[in-house]
Amino acid sequence: MKKGKQSYLLNNRIFVKDTSVLVGKRESEGPLKEYFYDVLEDDLFNSKSYELAECKMQRHTLQNLLKKCEMKIDDVDCLMGGDLQNQIFATSFAAREFHASFLGLYGACSTFGEGLALASLLIDGGDFKNIVVTTSSHFSSAERNYRFPLELGNQRTPLSQWTVTASGSVMLSCDRPEEEIVPAITAVTIGKTIDYGVTDANDMGAAMAPAAFDTLKTHFSELSRSPSYYDAIFTGDLGIFGLDLCAHLLEQDGITMPKSFSDCGKIIFSEKQKVFMGGSGAGCSSAVFGAYIYELMKKGELKKVLLVPTGALLNKDSPLQKQSIPGIAHAVAIEV
Amino acid sequence: MKKGKQSYLLNNRIFVKDTSVLVGKRESEGPLKEYFYDVLEDDLFNSKSYELAECKMQRHTLQNLLKKCEMKIDDVDCLMGGDLQNQIFATSFAAREFHASFLGLYGACSTFGEGLALASLLIDGGDFKNIVVTTSSHFSSAERNYRFPLELGNQRTPLSQWTVTASGSVMLSCDRPEEEIVPAITAVTIGKTIDYGVTDANDMGAAMAPAAFDTLKTHFSELSRSPSYYDAIFTGDLGIFGLDLCAHLLEQDGITMPKSFSDCGKIIFSEKQKVFMGGSGAGCSSAVFGAYIYELMKKGELKKVLLVPTGALLNKDSPLQKQSIPGIAHAVAIEV
Repeated sequence: MKKGKQSYLLNNRIFVKDTSVLVGKRESEGPLKEYFYDVLEDDLFNSKSYELAECKMQRHTLQNLLKKCEMKIDDVDCLMGGDLQNQIFATSFAAREFHASFLGLYGACSTFGEGLALASLLIDGGDFKNIVVTTSSHFSSAERNYRFPLELGNQRTPLSQWTVTASGSVMLSCDRPEEEIVPAITAVTIGKTIDYGVTDANDMGAAMAPAAFDTLKTHFSELSRSPSYYDAIFTGDLGIFGLDLCAHLLEQDGITMPKSFSDCGKIIFSEKQKVFMGGSGAGCSSAVFGAYIYELMKKGELKKVLLVPTGALLNKDSPLQKQSIPGIAHAVAIEV
Repeated sequence: MKKGKQSYLLNNRIFVKDTSVLVGKRESEGPLKEYFYDVLEDDLFNSKSYELAECKMQRHTLQNLLKKCEMKIDDVDCLMGGDLQNQIFATSFAAREFHASFLGLYGACSTFGEGLALASLLIDGGDFKNIVVTTSSHFSSAERNYRFPLELGNQRTPLSQWTVTASGSVMLSCDRPEEEIVPAITAVTIGKTIDYGVTDANDMGAAMAPAAFDTLKTHFSELSRSPSYYDAIFTGDLGIFGLDLCAHLLEQDGITMPKSFSDCGKIIFSEKQKVFMGGSGAGCSSAVFGAYIYELMKKGELKKVLLVPTGALLNKDSPLQKQSIPGIAHAVAIEV
């Protein structure tokens, strides 16, 4: 049921049947280490390039997801997702090996939110049963695409974030799995493209915070919910500074966020790991959701979660062409 | 209603309320010249770069579409689409100025088909009323991204295609406009990623033909239709050689295509224009559909059309990393 202009209260519960997450070594050494079971020993994953390694990571999580769900690709109506490589190379190439309808998405690091929202709406429409949503990012493939070759050893700026090496896939389904506690998507808010004029390509948090603010504000108002409706609210990868900015924008608008308001990019790394503002990347929210948030929900430690993956819609050339960086964020309510 | 594994027979007619198309000069001089009303005088469109010109083209067609439909952006539930620039820069940047939910898609030149399929399914689900699908491509921005700087004056290979400079937007709606003949989407088949191992990045037709073949074959079999069900079948941008290949693959499989089987990339240019195998690009099928096919349908000259936008899922680096080129194609049945 449509609520307002951007939000949808789903008529059915769209169950998260299972998740599959693979992370890099650095991610496995952070605060969420006990939640990451599947860890890369080296970033190249026995591939000839970081780009091909990322494809292989997606293939790996997709295969693992099917195995965990005890399903075959024939049981999947559609595979959708994306990544940060040009022309979503990693996802498209991984999709070659899964004989199912494929829909490529691009919303930068918000892609996981876009996929969850779209898949839930399609399943809620009645014609789809099982949809896989998958995203990934790789520090080394992103760094050389968006910034500098690693070999240059460029110094990082204080507000920069570290692209997470991770791939996360989830199986959404209209069929309730036979388990006691099953997290399910109940509502979504599809974000608008928001641009406050931020031009620093090393400060993604500031570029995305206004979009997260806009989506959160819209979500609360259209669904007549306050932040306290949720046990926890996680943005995607605003990082430490972006999360503060977002909370500040909400505060200015009369919405006080609870202390539990957090960010996947903020919690995946610790300060000791020297990644400055935290993690980012299309694989950040899918990995943190799939490994950590989903597990807490299954254990009953979190009952109502709002996940708001955020994306910065730039490319390597747009800052050079003196363009500011638009952001986007989609909100997905998950409840048990 | 789901039919088979990849096809959906829509429960409602999803009306094409109107279309808006802007093309470059070369496109306006081809065989479809009488159908293109809105033509760029120069490829830069008073912008500082070809990339920014393409953003402006999208903005222009979107604004024009709203005007033609006598609608405001507030009447639009969602804007979705993409283009060929890295991280779909043109579409994301154009979306900044339209305050509506935005979903970025990437399916290379099949993006228009992906958008039409997704939008129809969402509207058919009951929660969406009006969705705008928009795609674009620009010869000069694509050439320097995927191939060589234009200034090099590289010689083109015989099987190459010419990226169309065009932007096309359509308004899909569950409300029937008050006109006698209104084309409407009635069925869709969502394609799989298919890779026959083609490695020549200058021969997109060969890379995409197997995907078009697979989607057409699936569409006919899952919906129990023969090619003769349609007055006309257009693939997206297989070009002259790719279309022949696709017809040959279908023939081998026992499906004889009628003489009317054609391709948007083939018909947008004439042989005299020396573009070898024809046009290509994410704006190719949206422009040919929006300006030509839609007009013929409104005039009653075509009643049942199958549009199959095709995409080659490579990026500029993947052929350099010795990867073959997967293709994808989505089929959309439009009837009056």
